[in-house]
Amino acid sequence: MNCVIVGSVALDSVRTPHGEVERALGGSAVYASIAASRFTCPGIVGVVGDDFPKEHIALLKKKKVNLEGLQIVSGKTFHWKGYYEGDLAHAHTISTDLNVFASFEPVLPETYRNAEFLFLANIDPVLQMHVLEQVKKPRLVVCDTMNFWINGRRNELLEVLRKIDVFVLNEGEAWMLTDTRIMPEALDRLLKLGPSCVIIKEGRHGALMKSRNDYFTLPAYLLREVKDTTGAGDTFAGGFIGYLASRRRVTPTEIRRGMIMGTILSSFVCQDFSIKATASLTDARFASRCEEYGQYARIPNLHF
Amino acid sequence: MNCVIVGSVALDSVRTPHGEVERALGGSAVYASIAASRFTCPGIVGVVGDDFPKEHIALLKKKKVNLEGLQIVSGKTFHWKGYYEGDLAHAHTISTDLNVFASFEPVLPETYRNAEFLFLANIDPVLQMHVLEQVKKPRLVVCDTMNFWINGRRNELLEVLRKIDVFVLNEGEAWMLTDTRIMPEALDRLLKLGPSCVIIKEGRHGALMKSRNDYFTLPAYLLREVKDTTGAGDTFAGGFIGYLASRRRVTPTEIRRGMIMGTILSSFVCQDFSIKATASLTDARFASRCEEYGQYARIPNLHF
Repeated sequence: MNCVIVGSVALDSVRTPHGEVERALGGSAVYASIAASRFTCPGIVGVVGDDFPKEHIALLKKKKVNLEGLQIVSGKTFHWKGYYEGDLAHAHTISTDLNVFASFEPVLPETYRNAEFLFLANIDPVLQMHVLEQVKKPRLVVCDTMNFWINGRRNELLEVLRKIDVFVLNEGEAWMLTDTRIMPEALDRLLKLGPSCVIIKEGRHGALMKSRNDYFTLPAYLLREVKDTTGAGDTFAGGFIGYLASRRRVTPTEIRRGMIMGTILSSFVCQDFSIKATASLTDARFASRCEEYGQYARIPNLHF
Repeated sequence: MNCVIVGSVALDSVRTPHGEVERALGGSAVYASIAASRFTCPGIVGVVGDDFPKEHIALLKKKKVNLEGLQIVSGKTFHWKGYYEGDLAHAHTISTDLNVFASFEPVLPETYRNAEFLFLANIDPVLQMHVLEQVKKPRLVVCDTMNFWINGRRNELLEVLRKIDVFVLNEGEAWMLTDTRIMPEALDRLLKLGPSCVIIKEGRHGALMKSRNDYFTLPAYLLREVKDTTGAGDTFAGGFIGYLASRRRVTPTEIRRGMIMGTILSSFVCQDFSIKATASLTDARFASRCEEYGQYARIPNLHF
């Protein structure tokens, strides 16, 4: 397995001004692996209950997501219920039922342990560490997190950060972790925590990246209709690592390209609920949006 | 006169978390013309009172800003007093004393009437129209505005918009004028009002542009220290039109380059109070930041 993704596999009930879904396929590992599956065949590490609909399993298999690492145990699948208002920039949680996720102990199948590309999606840093310890010689480890872990598991998170390569987080989380709102300063402080590369997701304002040898900022793809922003960050990171896993070289230019792939895929995921838009995305539509994006974000040469 | 700029010439008293200034040189026409003076010799249309410090006149002359169109009349100069908090994204007004500006009637010197490039900076749309009517055959008219005029002089503003080429405004103003927060939709509605090109300034998130034949989005230059954001938008627009006036060709690529020049100059203006940073900016520092920006915002070719 070239690319392994650990995170939540969930059923989400989501309401936005544009509609709602009940117990739709969701979770950080699902969004990320559907995005990564455009470029590679990722393996999922996660857990679901025996109520998990067979059609979801079928869909993931159809998208060439390897499910050897997905535990199916007795009980109910993790369920998140929430809603969005206005410009859908912030999720409001109504309820989080961890269910079988509460006692999840990630065990990697033998075939996953040689993974070169590993994405520790947003879950308890303690679990992220357990997974990291089971992968023998990862070439690139990407890690996401959320405010909940920054507050509640700060030390465990800091320990994970010392062992990863790329830290992906949003602006508010960066401020929280670094105690500064000055972004260049925040990036420097985040790099000092261990990662060699930090990516700040800024939603409809795009993303920023700073590494030891590059600095990059890119705009988002502007959408005319945003139906549901759930999973946009997971999709970004999944597209990013999936692309890099398919290229195998991790150069500054490939990192920029990976961020663009993540940006384009996350624009699609916001156009429909759950993973509908990314799972049904054709190569032609994806290539066409990449082409369009490349045009509209192109910086011309500057001469004096 | 190749490039004419009409707007306010003011004395500003500004307080930010990083310091304060009393009756410092300010006003939309001043910020814009200092920025434009990097590329061309702009002429100012405006008014000041007989209290206007001679050192300000000397500075503008030294920057090769033509002052033939600046009326000096009996009375006090326009004075704005305000402050900023937090990330300096929003100005809070303490007082606005229009003084001699209240009865300002712009009259263009004969040498200004053949201007090819005209910037109607943020003033009453009625005055913008008076200026527009006096310029014989402008090739490119750029117009800025603010929420105050959108509310209080909507019809007059709409009349101006039917006669200009490039409309420069910020995100909140775009929402106000178009009744939508969906940016691609807002851009379309703004284009229908008359301009052939609309530029949305998004502060630290960069800028967007849509015209009949191009669509462009660019990130801001991220600063480690922001001292005072007053005049950032005026500086952006002044740099934009000054650059285009110096190139004389108005092509989609030159428009993109003009936006980049505006972006870089507005990053400098935020690093100090008043026009200190843009007025003292050396060619070498400017070129170096353009080079740096070109690197960090560069979108690599995407191949599949």
